[in-house]
Amino acid sequence: MERPFNFSAGPAALPEAVLQQAAAEMLDWQGKGISVMEMSHRSRDFDSIIMQAEKDLRDLLAVPDTYRILFTQASATALNAVIPMNLAGKGPTPPIIDFVHTGVWSGKSLVEAQKYARVNVAASSELSHFNTIPPQASWQLTDRAAYVHICSNETINGTEYFFTPDTGPVPLVADMSSHILSRPVDIEKYGLIFAGAQKNMGMAGVSVVIVKEDLISHALPVCPSVYDFSSLSLHHSIFNTPPVYAIYICGLVLKWLKEQGGVPAMEAAAVRKSALLYDCIDASSLYANSVDRSCRSRMNVPFFLQDASLEDAFLAGAEKNGLLQLRGHRSTGGMRASLYNAMPVAGVEKLVAYMREFERTH
Amino acid sequence: MERPFNFSAGPAALPEAVLQQAAAEMLDWQGKGISVMEMSHRSRDFDSIIMQAEKDLRDLLAVPDTYRILFTQASATALNAVIPMNLAGKGPTPPIIDFVHTGVWSGKSLVEAQKYARVNVAASSELSHFNTIPPQASWQLTDRAAYVHICSNETINGTEYFFTPDTGPVPLVADMSSHILSRPVDIEKYGLIFAGAQKNMGMAGVSVVIVKEDLISHALPVCPSVYDFSSLSLHHSIFNTPPVYAIYICGLVLKWLKEQGGVPAMEAAAVRKSALLYDCIDASSLYANSVDRSCRSRMNVPFFLQDASLEDAFLAGAEKNGLLQLRGHRSTGGMRASLYNAMPVAGVEKLVAYMREFERTH
Repeated sequence: MERPFNFSAGPAALPEAVLQQAAAEMLDWQGKGISVMEMSHRSRDFDSIIMQAEKDLRDLLAVPDTYRILFTQASATALNAVIPMNLAGKGPTPPIIDFVHTGVWSGKSLVEAQKYARVNVAASSELSHFNTIPPQASWQLTDRAAYVHICSNETINGTEYFFTPDTGPVPLVADMSSHILSRPVDIEKYGLIFAGAQKNMGMAGVSVVIVKEDLISHALPVCPSVYDFSSLSLHHSIFNTPPVYAIYICGLVLKWLKEQGGVPAMEAAAVRKSALLYDCIDASSLYANSVDRSCRSRMNVPFFLQDASLEDAFLAGAEKNGLLQLRGHRSTGGMRASLYNAMPVAGVEKLVAYMREFERTH
Repeated sequence: MERPFNFSAGPAALPEAVLQQAAAEMLDWQGKGISVMEMSHRSRDFDSIIMQAEKDLRDLLAVPDTYRILFTQASATALNAVIPMNLAGKGPTPPIIDFVHTGVWSGKSLVEAQKYARVNVAASSELSHFNTIPPQASWQLTDRAAYVHICSNETINGTEYFFTPDTGPVPLVADMSSHILSRPVDIEKYGLIFAGAQKNMGMAGVSVVIVKEDLISHALPVCPSVYDFSSLSLHHSIFNTPPVYAIYICGLVLKWLKEQGGVPAMEAAAVRKSALLYDCIDASSLYANSVDRSCRSRMNVPFFLQDASLEDAFLAGAEKNGLLQLRGHRSTGGMRASLYNAMPVAGVEKLVAYMREFERTH
């Protein structure tokens, strides 16, 4: 049976090959007679799983040796607190953090950071309904910030950075949750990159932090030990019981990504898939996407039906055609198609064909 | 093929029926065509999963309506920080917390709590090498503590409380990670009970917090929003993306527990399994367990070989016989057999037979 195409923004579709392997190994991982779920985190077997996952991620993103890769049970939302707790202690007191506010996720991050630091909103696209990314020339950065925070792909608003900001000596921190591994990244331009796994890297329950070595060891006293990057780094992400199964699934996805040709192949596919969908929207008089073309996300494509009364019919028909989870975020309404790495081109082709047919008949 | 018996202290063995169902549903949960891993946490399907898990846990432990059940991605180690951040703000300032120090886990908890409050060690069994539980008559409680913290089963030291402390109007907080659901609990004697799932309830990646309603809404300003019990409670554990798959597995385990006869059946099995093993140890001149008989854990049985040079042979022979993960914690050495709910009586019978045979031939 052909599986339906799942456009969920997260937890999102996983490669079928990954699910097949996970199912096959559920009761017996590689002849050891037990599931990864049942494996001591101090065992050699689990050590081999996490080390391989770290190595594959390092290879895929060409992470330099001067950066640590940490797996943490803190979700991306938890990291909104954990990152200031780790990084705000480095600069002058009281700490100040520059934020570029481009949508729901950078907004959540900046509100949370206010628990631990003063926040300077260096730029905001709120007045343009978050349909743009403010060009760097317009940013009002402070000169003594602990770091500059951006969300390089806004999952809900559907915007993506297509430039890498230059923040000079001030570390750049990027929430890449919803587009990590979909395009090459010049890691050395960043102080810290973080991403929850459940969009482009695995299942909900683990996040990845890629952090420059000189940014660890500055945690505020209120930072829980388990989230102190220096403890995590010292213990190679096994400070306490880590989410072993989520790390295993992440490892399977990373292995699959390598087999597919790595990040360049994913970028080529993302360009193709997003162009298919945006072209369909732009050519239509029923569908609309309001994001500025210079920063339309390749991963998350929100769109609206000019006649909102057709939404339920659109969604019901989509589901009948095996096109799932297309309803937009509750804060925006409308539709949203997420085109992460695990979404095949065929899924987008089928969606576009359905959209054209729906427009023709409604 | 018969699966081996897995005595890991955690992540620990899961019921085979649970793993079978998880494997069967990996690519297609209940005819929906997608894995639970791929399911939006805002979907009706996931809502039915988490609601059923909560209901089953409430039924199994007879949790009164005046208590909230929260699922959180914070591990039990993270909760060592999160609980004081939530509860220390309730009492007088500066906050003070009473701890009963009975081993490694209560020790970790009290060290972490010092980030957020003053800590009073009301009693400690350190001088007796954590082989006892101090009787309540000896506890030096303060009269203005925010709460009293105990670890009701010490996974590493192998002790278990067989009495419920009476702390009067001061809330009692219990870390039940390694024996939850192995015996009935009078919930109303506690202000808060917490447990990581990966020992007796599921896979690593989710914890359960059972908390009296009047203890929420007192979080310190430094508490990350995602761990504020009032936010979690208000959003029925879906404040942000929860660990959907870990909650699903927890739900499968809870359903399995109900089918087995619930907590009373688990307690009867725990009594039988632990008696089999302790009797074998006590009758032997090779094996020894040094915990006072009044507080020997039914879940975690550490034991030593009088001739430590035989340890490697013991472990190799055990593994050959399908008896896995018996090596003791790295801090104590020796052996440890964890006899959680998912361990069948047959597993303990096989272990005991192996131990007798090993003693006879060595």
